[in-house]
Amino acid sequence: MDTISTNRSHGGTQGVYSHRSAETGTQMTFSVFVPDHAPGAKLPVVWFLSGLTCTHANVTEKGEFRAACAQHGVIFVAPDTSPRGDDVPDDEAYDFGKGAGFYVDATQQPWAANFRMRAYIEKELPALVAAQFPADMARQGITGHSMGGHGALTIALRNPGVFRSVSAFSPIVSPLNCPWGDKALTGYIGADRTVWREYDACALIEDGARLPDLLVDQGTADGFLEGQLKTQILADACEKVGQPATIRMQEGYDHSYYFISTFMADHIAWHSERLKD
Amino acid sequence: MDTISTNRSHGGTQGVYSHRSAETGTQMTFSVFVPDHAPGAKLPVVWFLSGLTCTHANVTEKGEFRAACAQHGVIFVAPDTSPRGDDVPDDEAYDFGKGAGFYVDATQQPWAANFRMRAYIEKELPALVAAQFPADMARQGITGHSMGGHGALTIALRNPGVFRSVSAFSPIVSPLNCPWGDKALTGYIGADRTVWREYDACALIEDGARLPDLLVDQGTADGFLEGQLKTQILADACEKVGQPATIRMQEGYDHSYYFISTFMADHIAWHSERLKD
Repeated sequence: MDTISTNRSHGGTQGVYSHRSAETGTQMTFSVFVPDHAPGAKLPVVWFLSGLTCTHANVTEKGEFRAACAQHGVIFVAPDTSPRGDDVPDDEAYDFGKGAGFYVDATQQPWAANFRMRAYIEKELPALVAAQFPADMARQGITGHSMGGHGALTIALRNPGVFRSVSAFSPIVSPLNCPWGDKALTGYIGADRTVWREYDACALIEDGARLPDLLVDQGTADGFLEGQLKTQILADACEKVGQPATIRMQEGYDHSYYFISTFMADHIAWHSERLKD
Repeated sequence: MDTISTNRSHGGTQGVYSHRSAETGTQMTFSVFVPDHAPGAKLPVVWFLSGLTCTHANVTEKGEFRAACAQHGVIFVAPDTSPRGDDVPDDEAYDFGKGAGFYVDATQQPWAANFRMRAYIEKELPALVAAQFPADMARQGITGHSMGGHGALTIALRNPGVFRSVSAFSPIVSPLNCPWGDKALTGYIGADRTVWREYDACALIEDGARLPDLLVDQGTADGFLEGQLKTQILADACEKVGQPATIRMQEGYDHSYYFISTFMADHIAWHSERLKD
């Protein structure tokens, strides 16, 4: 692991790191905030998965998570959203290819070799974080924004017992039911929609997967709400099977980091409460 | 005034605006955060002047001021650091020309026509803010970072009674005594260093100007501390004449927004305390 930068911030260390990923076959960059802590202490970890077009940098610069993470003693990890590099296949659209990994393991060409963000986030990066940082991997939470909200929900649903807390900001709740999902899943994993169900939070819940609890914030002025995010499908799926969920429609808020940063401290507090020893 | 964007954030409205400036002869962009408030209420205003290479956008995206401003009911105004546009003279250096207005009214060519950031910040923009926003101009505070800390200190010192609270993050305290100051003041206002004294916080204090009080945060790991910022000159100038000043050296912090954002809430609270009715 290479250290790209470290900056003291909010009583802790904000670092940016890179490493060679065996899963994606590329150099991957991610950021980690570690609050000051007692020598030898292990801290709970909250993962933040970012949305379309983003890298680790967007939330690292604009997410306003550090004050809350320092207050609660929580490590915050922000991975990239796709493999990068000149050798990695891409698409000129903003919602497919680089910056749009969708947290799947691609099976279709030319994506299958590099676009393995599911395995990267579920296995490879946690092992690196556990080895390199004072992280208590028995106390992990996960959240994310938009495509990353989809990632957080589906990764948590497929890995019962790994995440003690799960939340999302304006998540894509059902790739089976929106244009972003149609395009990405067709492209990365093919036309057989039965296979898509493991990458669809609502389908996973319908098929029996459960979360300990769930917090979602969604802005009512979000331009993607009606056509892509469709929060109500998640609310209905949870209600139908008795999955506990707190889904908050936030009046006047949009899809931007101005929205995310507003509710970030709430989410960190919510995770921290569930990640206590 | 044109509205470029508005986003709901932290229980208020973050706007970005532009207007034609008579002082600079250019279109100028600035941002304003207005917390929700009772109809007809007027709120105190904190000005934030940015540093070299910055626009309004840096602090607007990375400054982490909105939560504190909403909590205390404070309007936050972030101007640009220089005139902009293809017709405006520039220099290829990062520390002179566009992005480096130094909050002076230039007298030298080719800068004199456009580089009037002193008059813009002291007169033109406050009049616009008073007319367009629910701002109580009898309750103004001012702060800034680096070159903008220099701007905040000198503007407050030259305008007694206008600002009830003054603070700075890692300010340039004495352009008479650093390479950034030498270059900028020689270029914008000429070689006569006696004229520079009105653009030097320490010289202004030595010459009799006073602030009601003063808060400065400065990181000890700031790479510009020794060669450019020289905080001790300000500490000495204040001590010599009995100017009240709280100057805090923050261990391990650097010159970045990771530092600024850490202490922003402290500064907003400090201003708010002094801007009560």
